Amino acid sequence: MQSANWDSLWLNVHLATMDAALDYGIIRDAAIAVKDGKIAWIGAAQDLPADYKVKVLHDGQGCWLTPGLIDCHTHMVYAGNRSNEFEARLNGVTYEEIARQGGGIVSTVKATRAATEQELMQASLPRVLSSLREGVTTLEIKSGYGLDTETEAKILRVARQIQRDLPVTVTTTFLGAHALPPEFAGRADDYIDEVCERMLPAIVAEGLADAVDVFCEKIGFTPAQTERVFQVAQKYGLPVKLHAEQLSDQGGASLTAQYQGLSADHLEYLSDAGIAAMKSHGTVAVLLPGAFYYLRETKLPPIAALRAANVPIALATDCNPGTSPMTSPLLTMNMACTLFRMTPLEALQGLTVNAAKALGLQQTIGSLALGKQADFALWQIERPADLAYMIGVNPCRFSVYAGEPRTYN
Amino acid sequence: MQSANWDSLWLNVHLATMDAALDYGIIRDAAIAVKDGKIAWIGAAQDLPADYKVKVLHDGQGCWLTPGLIDCHTHMVYAGNRSNEFEARLNGVTYEEIARQGGGIVSTVKATRAATEQELMQASLPRVLSSLREGVTTLEIKSGYGLDTETEAKILRVARQIQRDLPVTVTTTFLGAHALPPEFAGRADDYIDEVCERMLPAIVAEGLADAVDVFCEKIGFTPAQTERVFQVAQKYGLPVKLHAEQLSDQGGASLTAQYQGLSADHLEYLSDAGIAAMKSHGTVAVLLPGAFYYLRETKLPPIAALRAANVPIALATDCNPGTSPMTSPLLTMNMACTLFRMTPLEALQGLTVNAAKALGLQQTIGSLALGKQADFALWQIERPADLAYMIGVNPCRFSVYAGEPRTYN
Ligand SMILES: [Zn+2]
Ligand SMILES: [Zn+2]
Repeated sequence: MQSANWDSLWLNVHLATMDAALDYGIIRDAAIAVKDGKIAWIGAAQDLPADYKVKVLHDGQGCWLTPGLIDCHTHMVYAGNRSNEFEARLNGVTYEEIARQGGGIVSTVKATRAATEQELMQASLPRVLSSLREGVTTLEIKSGYGLDTETEAKILRVARQIQRDLPVTVTTTFLGAHALPPEFAGRADDYIDEVCERMLPAIVAEGLADAVDVFCEKIGFTPAQTERVFQVAQKYGLPVKLHAEQLSDQGGASLTAQYQGLSADHLEYLSDAGIAAMKSHGTVAVLLPGAFYYLRETKLPPIAALRAANVPIALATDCNPGTSPMTSPLLTMNMACTLFRMTPLEALQGLTVNAAKALGLQQTIGSLALGKQADFALWQIERPADLAYMIGVNPCRFSVYAGEPRTYN
Repeated sequence: MQSANWDSLWLNVHLATMDAALDYGIIRDAAIAVKDGKIAWIGAAQDLPADYKVKVLHDGQGCWLTPGLIDCHTHMVYAGNRSNEFEARLNGVTYEEIARQGGGIVSTVKATRAATEQELMQASLPRVLSSLREGVTTLEIKSGYGLDTETEAKILRVARQIQRDLPVTVTTTFLGAHALPPEFAGRADDYIDEVCERMLPAIVAEGLADAVDVFCEKIGFTPAQTERVFQVAQKYGLPVKLHAEQLSDQGGASLTAQYQGLSADHLEYLSDAGIAAMKSHGTVAVLLPGAFYYLRETKLPPIAALRAANVPIALATDCNPGTSPMTSPLLTMNMACTLFRMTPLEALQGLTVNAAKALGLQQTIGSLALGKQADFALWQIERPADLAYMIGVNPCRFSVYAGEPRTYN
């Protein structure tokens, strides 16, 4: 038998492998080896083979090592800022007045259309870096603040550029059907024509989207309009996902499941039928406690029923300027526990193994297992539950992307 | 007239001076000069005198510069960690069962008693540093996890040591009457004897306390017991403050006001009579949205009535392991806006000018004004409201303590 020959080896760490359904997969006093950016050995340090060779030896200094976090639902690339509206509302200005003054999503669309690709990158970078500092190694980024072909493509190009510039995996989602642009006021079906016949084909031609999403809601698009977009996505071989059942039950989760969707997201108003459909098609439930908190929602997503049906639950920041101006995966975990009464284990699963499933990447990331990409976060904590327990403290000492310790500003 | 001669000058900044009651006190394209650790000149850059001399010139790179933040209510110095209880509760274990197993505040007291001064410092330092990274330049730290003379003194010694070791002002508060220690079970009045006759005199003799606090509540100490502690504090010339009206109306705020207290804190159940008393004695209302959030409290403090009475409202993290394991002043601001519907201006006042009042330090810190200590935070934001709007993003680029740019790990 050939002796092990590794690129790097981490010693003096405790692992939460997240490679088990019912617990953290804890291995104390562990070792984890990397070869060609992948996990080549994992186990208790005392079980290391006697004859390994390794180029770089890392001392984990007693940290806990988890899979790199995965934020599977964000709208992180946009220009402008809506703190002026936040302040105006708290000073008593009505939503209607703000809308009359060009506020709301329209203001973000306007700013994003006006920004150059470079400006859009500059505006988004602090959000991305904030995420990376908390151990995120995979980030989903949606379009949806362009609402025209040119700007939607620009947003997704910036998302692709983030992966080229920084040690992070970015998966991109085309969300042209996020809102009705002012030019199409009163003509939602015409806008869906535009999305299906011009925007999505152009995005596909440029290879900019890994998935397709729609905002299906009374104030968004109907299930019928959603299905038209899904059909075109299917034609192009792109997986779908949906903003579903956030404010009312539109049957969006079932529709998504029928199209073998990766995930249905939000889900405060999800029905039992929706849960059954998600279960039978393997569609992941993505919960977004930041939006729940920011909107002071009181209707909880049906956590107990999702658990009972064994539908995997992922968690994400939903980072966006209007309803969740939040980048923090750790705070997302705390909110899932505090507001949704999920357990710290479920919270960490929600940002690792189940988030990987929500992106269709469960074969390559989301847990610490032989052959998976060596994406780690190292935490100065006493136990894994600390990650969900602490509020506004970042104990991430270090992170590793594809086997390489990350450095960035 | 002598020409100005400064130690340092900050240019290319916008100021929110917080030196006005009704707005941020904004000065765009401003300059601020420091001499002997104090603000020696402040105004629009174009109004700078022609003939100033300065040793060090700083480029603020277009940042917003505010007073350093002041966290006026924390229990940051403790040992141990209660994430295990957090996790157990979410897994369905009852409070009673946790208490039977030695959990709750008793577990923190046990760990804190067992820790050496050095261990206590090591345990607390990550929390302090997390606070400093978000622009905090003044921190109140309470005892209350010792509940015996030796450990209460140890906690406050560590608090004093933090000021010596790091560029931050620490004000200390003796909170011996935080909870009944197990040794005094069923003998609360005897414990108050101990607090008044042995603990507080020893703390005073060592010069360890700047103020005295009590937890006045059905599950804490009675108003009569509180008053006994206040009388001893008064005898020693120490100002008082109170954990008041968090879970029920005990009349604690009125009592505190009668003793010319600095602040009454929590206040969810504050009555109109309490507000009137606070108003007439200049007692500050300290609100703690982190505890409100973490405990999923639904009874809001009477913000509108406090506003109407012109009682200054301060905000603080209440950082503690049991009911607010949170260090973030910025998240505190967001929670004040999101959960309490305070405005971003009120939120920033709550962590600057009104927090200074809550500590009796309004003459020296809390706003940017001539002669005040040069404690600043520099923020990479578009406008002051961003500080309250963003969730889990830290835009603090830099901070300055007594005129010196801070460096620490
Ligand atoms: Zn979303
Ligand atoms: Zn407190």
